Amino acid sequence: MRIRAVFLVAVVMGLLCAASNLPAQSPDAAIKAMMLKSADDWNKGDIDAFASSYKNSPDILFMGDPINKGYAAMVARYKKVYGSKVKMGALSFSDLEVQPLDAKFATVTGKFHLERSADGGGNADGYYLLVAEKTKDGWKIIRDSSTSSPKK
Amino acid sequence: MRIRAVFLVAVVMGLLCAASNLPAQSPDAAIKAMMLKSADDWNKGDIDAFASSYKNSPDILFMGDPINKGYAAMVARYKKVYGSKVKMGALSFSDLEVQPLDAKFATVTGKFHLERSADGGGNADGYYLLVAEKTKDGWKIIRDSSTSSPKK
Repeated sequence: MRIRAVFLVAVVMGLLCAASNLPAQSPDAAIKAMMLKSADDWNKGDIDAFASSYKNSPDILFMGDPINKGYAAMVARYKKVYGSKVKMGALSFSDLEVQPLDAKFATVTGKFHLERSADGGGNADGYYLLVAEKTKDGWKIIRDSSTSSPKK
Repeated sequence: MRIRAVFLVAVVMGLLCAASNLPAQSPDAAIKAMMLKSADDWNKGDIDAFASSYKNSPDILFMGDPINKGYAAMVARYKKVYGSKVKMGALSFSDLEVQPLDAKFATVTGKFHLERSADGGGNADGYYLLVAEKTKDGWKIIRDSSTSSPKK
């Protein structure tokens, strides 16, 4: 009985030790995971979860004319423009690339495709440049410049 | 004679000391100066001088569909699209704002207006998100996402 207990303690300590030595997820992997989660959240119709990929800060910038400043304004805009599941459609990303700037900042580029019924506004395509920041809650988007491609 | 020499040395040392204590130009002032110089260079029809506001690196990104990568491709694109003074028109920036990220990186947002004859392609308006890096040659643009506003 004592031997089994000692063995169990050794196994648990070994696992804890191994976990603490796991390499931290690379910025590339962490940011791509964040982006894929945001598309998943969008496709569940959950704008609040989708928005959590952005930093909850009054300083974030969402490009447009005029430029939207701050998390609250961005969430309000998303809820106004994409007020229903039909208008949200199905979002997917391609050509996703991460370019680290330093340990705390990176840019992200890629293309988006929104598959949507005519009722929802029809399909949309475009590309984006994001700036992401490594915060205490993980990588978060702090600048978003998304551009719709002209219809082909 | 000796007194004048000592006085001269004191003055020179004083000037050197004062110069070394001058505050470094703030990122905000340095980046705005870089942007204004780039518009001046554009308006002289000098694309090579204009392009020197960008970092001469194969890694810079100029957003579009497809995304242009690298300084050489960007300069070639500018020379192809804006091959004459008439096509270049007169460039001006407004609402120029600098948002430092850390000591080495900043984002820049603003609007552009291109005043241009019908022959040159007509006026154009838009806004942009740039990422700038503090290099040994000063602040340089490393990401450019410029968007034309819909005609109003």
